[in-house]
Amino acid sequence: MGSHFNIHLGATSGHCARGSGFGGKALDTIILADWLSTRLDRTLAEPVYRQLLDLMQQAILTGQLASGTKLPSSRTLAGDLGIARNTVLHVYDQLTAEGYVTSTTGSGTYVADTAPSDGAASRKKQEPVDEPPRKPCIISKRGERLIAQAGVSPKQWGAFMPGVPDVAEFPSRTWSRLQSRLWKRASPELLTYAPGGGYRPLRRALSDYLRVARSVKCTPDQIIITTGIHQSIDLSVRLLTDTGDRAWVEEPCYWGVRSVLQSSGLTLVPVPVDDEGLNPTARDMTAPPRIALVTPSHQYPLGMVMSLARRRALLEFARQHGVWIIEDDYDSEFRYGSRPLSSLQGLDDSGQTIYVGSLGKMLFPGLRMGYMVVPDNLVDTFRTGIAELYREGQLMQQAVLTEFILDGHLTSHVRRMRGLYGERRELLINAINARFGDTLAVRGDEAGLHFVLELPRGANDVAIADDALANGVVTRPLVNYYVNRDAALRGLMLGYACVPNHEIAPAFGKLAGVIERALTAVEVTS
Amino acid sequence: MGSHFNIHLGATSGHCARGSGFGGKALDTIILADWLSTRLDRTLAEPVYRQLLDLMQQAILTGQLASGTKLPSSRTLAGDLGIARNTVLHVYDQLTAEGYVTSTTGSGTYVADTAPSDGAASRKKQEPVDEPPRKPCIISKRGERLIAQAGVSPKQWGAFMPGVPDVAEFPSRTWSRLQSRLWKRASPELLTYAPGGGYRPLRRALSDYLRVARSVKCTPDQIIITTGIHQSIDLSVRLLTDTGDRAWVEEPCYWGVRSVLQSSGLTLVPVPVDDEGLNPTARDMTAPPRIALVTPSHQYPLGMVMSLARRRALLEFARQHGVWIIEDDYDSEFRYGSRPLSSLQGLDDSGQTIYVGSLGKMLFPGLRMGYMVVPDNLVDTFRTGIAELYREGQLMQQAVLTEFILDGHLTSHVRRMRGLYGERRELLINAINARFGDTLAVRGDEAGLHFVLELPRGANDVAIADDALANGVVTRPLVNYYVNRDAALRGLMLGYACVPNHEIAPAFGKLAGVIERALTAVEVTS
Repeated sequence: MGSHFNIHLGATSGHCARGSGFGGKALDTIILADWLSTRLDRTLAEPVYRQLLDLMQQAILTGQLASGTKLPSSRTLAGDLGIARNTVLHVYDQLTAEGYVTSTTGSGTYVADTAPSDGAASRKKQEPVDEPPRKPCIISKRGERLIAQAGVSPKQWGAFMPGVPDVAEFPSRTWSRLQSRLWKRASPELLTYAPGGGYRPLRRALSDYLRVARSVKCTPDQIIITTGIHQSIDLSVRLLTDTGDRAWVEEPCYWGVRSVLQSSGLTLVPVPVDDEGLNPTARDMTAPPRIALVTPSHQYPLGMVMSLARRRALLEFARQHGVWIIEDDYDSEFRYGSRPLSSLQGLDDSGQTIYVGSLGKMLFPGLRMGYMVVPDNLVDTFRTGIAELYREGQLMQQAVLTEFILDGHLTSHVRRMRGLYGERRELLINAINARFGDTLAVRGDEAGLHFVLELPRGANDVAIADDALANGVVTRPLVNYYVNRDAALRGLMLGYACVPNHEIAPAFGKLAGVIERALTAVEVTS
Repeated sequence: MGSHFNIHLGATSGHCARGSGFGGKALDTIILADWLSTRLDRTLAEPVYRQLLDLMQQAILTGQLASGTKLPSSRTLAGDLGIARNTVLHVYDQLTAEGYVTSTTGSGTYVADTAPSDGAASRKKQEPVDEPPRKPCIISKRGERLIAQAGVSPKQWGAFMPGVPDVAEFPSRTWSRLQSRLWKRASPELLTYAPGGGYRPLRRALSDYLRVARSVKCTPDQIIITTGIHQSIDLSVRLLTDTGDRAWVEEPCYWGVRSVLQSSGLTLVPVPVDDEGLNPTARDMTAPPRIALVTPSHQYPLGMVMSLARRRALLEFARQHGVWIIEDDYDSEFRYGSRPLSSLQGLDDSGQTIYVGSLGKMLFPGLRMGYMVVPDNLVDTFRTGIAELYREGQLMQQAVLTEFILDGHLTSHVRRMRGLYGERRELLINAINARFGDTLAVRGDEAGLHFVLELPRGANDVAIADDALANGVVTRPLVNYYVNRDAALRGLMLGYACVPNHEIAPAFGKLAGVIERALTAVEVTS
């Protein structure tokens, strides 16, 4: 094979944006200067150098300046155009560097033959030919499915966006002060790539926190800092599963988990949940998955706690069948009325559980930081894997967070937010009860930044959420969290954490109007 | 199915870390207080509450406190242990919340039945039974391959680490000043999730820059801010390709690209490169890939520029066969002696090219920021895809960068670094020439932060790199960038950008000693 690909050739597409004016006729060097001078525009902000370069590139690409054509000398062309010779020289240099022309000292500058195959450069001059069959560029099946099922909302703020903390309450002055202090002594090690699982003092602080607050069994080495739960799960899936493997997900579950798993080629097995959490059917049990994703502390999105009996049963099942468990402990810090529950990982003696958590909900989501706790024997695998797949960095940010934690700001911020979110939760529940009494139930309100407002079976939660959005209120329909929508509970996910207290009642008022209209319509038709 | 999984049951693993002392005999409530009091240790830093909770949880998990056992009243137990009744009450509350015990008002507190199946809680008391067959948890085939082929180095700094800019030269005071200013007026919108492709003013600034400096055809809408080239490629692959699709990669190519593609289930087709860049064989052409990854401006790692003829041929081939092209323009800002070359994307009239670039090499890698330019008709797809798969954030950091660009700091920093890296490149080339004359060639030194020092065919570049590392010098063996190692050129990747001028000659002196010893050994054996 020569210097060109050996392909069946289509006409080169003409795109001389400024118009040809030569009816497709090739430019010879005598009229080149005229052609250029009618097109150079000194009134434009674009420098003459850039204009001239563009024009000549276009003329060569479209074949108007045919391959082999000798260009006028830079002195001649500069004189004809009334511009500095240096400008033309620079343009010729750049054309040479980019391969548009070839220069031979003493012999001159010639248009190079760069068209996709011999003779193509002059194709423009001939009659139009049939285009060869062209296969359109399309997005993939997994891409199509990802987009079709996308759960992400374009709005990420306001009443009643679930899962978003009140970042307006974040002590950004304190953060900024720590940040400035650290940047004053920014060492190269903190500014470059960061293989090794993250900033060690942060891993130490997190392992202390997780041991005490969540009964997680871990050393600092077992902690891997990630950009959040999505990355933690993605990394686990790529290291622990192969394409086509089965993954248990709770039905319903977080849309993001579903998307990450599917786009890595896993087959989702939605496993039902009841009041005690994950409740696999006999059929589920006969085909053990490679990996099981659970939210034991606060089922997402329904909010129940996985019972101790179920936890032990899951661990035992996983132990017998070599199943990896991913425990997503996404908002365990915010429990109202009771202490945080122990983690599933803390019950696991066989090293089958990967524990993942987020820092964004405690601080601010834009931080993009989370952590995972991996079994001892997988530490090296995960460290290499994360560096290889994503290349890590953000050590400065991790150092700021470490100071923030060690100075006690994280604890006091979370405590303050737990109080504030508790108030908001109560305001919203009161508003619901005042308007609907016992007719609509609230579930999963013991913890987290959201709860579910259940709707009657016949209700169309998607239509209600759309209507609410049109009225300025963000909610998520519960059905969207299900793989099998037919059997889905209907309801609305209501996030209260990021709504100022005084806005809760008015916003719910709008939403209640939408719900009432919809439910009345259901009653009428049924 | 009841509240437990219906599984074949193994013995619950005993892990009463503090020792039993009861020879496996169940604790009855009369001796519970004794058992506990011998184990509570008031001299430990761990609070009594925590110790008591742990002990009771362990006793229940191991079956020593059998299910159905009635616990003593909190008053009785507190009295027996000589601790505050409130402490016991809190422990009972927590045990109840976590499902270890059940409480019935008036009737008392009972150990719950939580063992994986009926009778399991008392299994501890019986003779040991055969363990059921246990399937070990293992990492996956793709995980194994990823780790086995991992190219990432644990060291990311020092002579002659390739691809790392000199972050010690980064104007961190300027950055910090802009950062402090922006954090003073941190708005909630900048602290929360950021769907939509990134901070709009940054996308505008980048599109202006790319249009002028790299001849990229784009509007701000077409720009998607990512965490770097790894994420840009990962996102493209998940949206545009399916498992099993073929991907052309250059042979040799960047290890990170290979890992990202393989872990997404693609089949790699290594396509040879020559002095004009990508040079597919006739056989490659008969089976068009779904996607082709190229580095036209500065082939990674060898450094040649893809010729205009090859660019046009690739675009035409891609147009005919519906191939997506990913153009990785990874360090185009650092060209020595000539102006930056135009992008391949700028030649593409059919919207088949995804252009990806990095900001880390211009600023500091720990920033973890890059961008991609996607065809107009894919903007929505990519915006939804990135939000769905990764959830975006870091708008504050993006805002800081925007100010940094608009104030002219980026341009002046890059210009200064280009000068500095140019000096270092020359120092290293001079050191090579002084020591080896014509015997060892340097290639790919026209641009970037590294070049390749070629070694004779028989040389073992891996062994030389290992030996160099033992002598404190980081290099990468060229063979590691090849899929087919048999036909690989042998050489060392030398990064000079992050090495202070005065350290270049001494560090190269050490490396030269290692090379000389190795080459002498080759001559002797051949």
